[in-house]
Amino acid sequence: MKKYNIESLVEKALKGNIVATAKLISLCENTDENEKIIKLISPHLGNAYIIGITGAPGVGKSTLTDKLIINLRKQNFKVGVIAVDPTSPFSGGAILGDRIRLQKHATDDNVFIRSMASRGHLGGISSATGDAVKILDAYGCDFIFIETMGVGQSEVEVVKNVDTTILILIPGMGDEIQVLKAGVMEIADIFVVNKADKDGVERTVLEIEMLQNLSESKDRLAPICKVIARDNQGIEDLAKAIHQHYVYLKENNLFDANRKKRLEMELKQIVHNKLLEKTFQFVAENYAIDKIIEDAYDNKTDVYSIVNKLLKKVVKI
Amino acid sequence: MKKYNIESLVEKALKGNIVATAKLISLCENTDENEKIIKLISPHLGNAYIIGITGAPGVGKSTLTDKLIINLRKQNFKVGVIAVDPTSPFSGGAILGDRIRLQKHATDDNVFIRSMASRGHLGGISSATGDAVKILDAYGCDFIFIETMGVGQSEVEVVKNVDTTILILIPGMGDEIQVLKAGVMEIADIFVVNKADKDGVERTVLEIEMLQNLSESKDRLAPICKVIARDNQGIEDLAKAIHQHYVYLKENNLFDANRKKRLEMELKQIVHNKLLEKTFQFVAENYAIDKIIEDAYDNKTDVYSIVNKLLKKVVKI
Repeated sequence: MKKYNIESLVEKALKGNIVATAKLISLCENTDENEKIIKLISPHLGNAYIIGITGAPGVGKSTLTDKLIINLRKQNFKVGVIAVDPTSPFSGGAILGDRIRLQKHATDDNVFIRSMASRGHLGGISSATGDAVKILDAYGCDFIFIETMGVGQSEVEVVKNVDTTILILIPGMGDEIQVLKAGVMEIADIFVVNKADKDGVERTVLEIEMLQNLSESKDRLAPICKVIARDNQGIEDLAKAIHQHYVYLKENNLFDANRKKRLEMELKQIVHNKLLEKTFQFVAENYAIDKIIEDAYDNKTDVYSIVNKLLKKVVKI
Repeated sequence: MKKYNIESLVEKALKGNIVATAKLISLCENTDENEKIIKLISPHLGNAYIIGITGAPGVGKSTLTDKLIINLRKQNFKVGVIAVDPTSPFSGGAILGDRIRLQKHATDDNVFIRSMASRGHLGGISSATGDAVKILDAYGCDFIFIETMGVGQSEVEVVKNVDTTILILIPGMGDEIQVLKAGVMEIADIFVVNKADKDGVERTVLEIEMLQNLSESKDRLAPICKVIARDNQGIEDLAKAIHQHYVYLKENNLFDANRKKRLEMELKQIVHNKLLEKTFQFVAENYAIDKIIEDAYDNKTDVYSIVNKLLKKVVKI
């Protein structure tokens, strides 16, 4: 038996109820009610500014986010955080980190923090965070942060779903790291060199500048902010850099254009997920896969012939 | 006008013609003739043993592969190599590397080396290498190596498509790397610590052993081979370790089982690609995407409603 009423939860979340908001995110994560929820809240979307924060483990993503939260709360903004954790959904890692961080803001209904495991989502972490962002937007957040470790392809996808992407580096990361991160470098709107009291800050800044010089035809050079998040140093300047990027997007008609591009990507992703879900369910219910595989393995048929026969059953077009 | 005859190329490749083989791989990469080619060669597949070689940039993947090739050629085996290069298809990086390596074996028709850019393939690099492996198998290769940098998700997918996966590490890689590589570690059937004359070899071996102890219930512990590929040291032992893994797979009925699992994954991948290709082509031809996006952006409708309407037009099921 269902122990929840979606309509009532949505109504409460829209009025700023934090418990209902948390429940809606959980329902989107763990049930197939997400479609209904998103339909109900969709007339109320588009107010939040979305910021991606990415970087390797240990660069200080959560410390930096916390300082930005404090900065934004002083200006009376409402803030949401979605921390994407690459640990398995069964490790409990996400939940533990969540609790520790929540304590700091426990009495503040204007700060909503949620961790999500990056694995174990049917439609991928990208669509799971997409749903959560929408719910936090409907809840009334002015700013929503998405934190990810810039490791896998799926985490990079997550960060593509934001208005401003901040990439955090620290001094002393070897060349090896820079190579691995090449794909991530390109998506940064703002670079942060955290732990700027450590040796090698200037070298790191130089390395970023060199990479920027190498990259082809950028209309805008991403600024490099040196901060010491732990000591709250440089956070004001970072907040300014975020605002300047917002102004840049608006002035160059990129704000709406980027969001529409993301909407199109989201549409494609949902078509993708639903199409495959339907098809593989149909196959599982109507075909003896083991027999087909045996025949293909014994070279009695080939994979393309199998697929073409199947698709004739599945699609109208 | 077509300047090639697929049937004739396939016939030649099956007889061991290296030029026809190269041409078939190019056709699979760059045209939609792959379906026809795979159908024609599919009765002749399943003889090659496929080995994945992965590791971060600079660990010595190509040097190690070259030494293994020399080892296998002494036993008169025919060898193919597909080197997956993460550089853009337009950088020319893949082609250059190819040429340098080809020179060493230029007069030997029993060694086929081919580089492939990891981006720019319609169905993903995983299906592009899958086609190339089949063609090299039909060409008569006894062993096929697939080299990838174990960086992105797609490269990990490539290495999943092999019988034996070798992961190369070198001494002195920091903890940071180990964290990044956590997902890759799990797929190794054999660990190689290359440059074993460098300081810190034993620490690296220890770190691998610690990670192995942490991982849950492994039926088989991946052996760790210390080699100095440049000086041809440890290559014999590595060749033995590969053979032992083959024997292990056979004795535990995993050889056929794993290949059938991969065949099933391949089927799913092709269904996936074709389904999406057909659908997005249909959408592009029959819908005004811009108008739909505008409506969704203005909250006049929501993404799920759009998708549900579309899918009714597309699928029978």
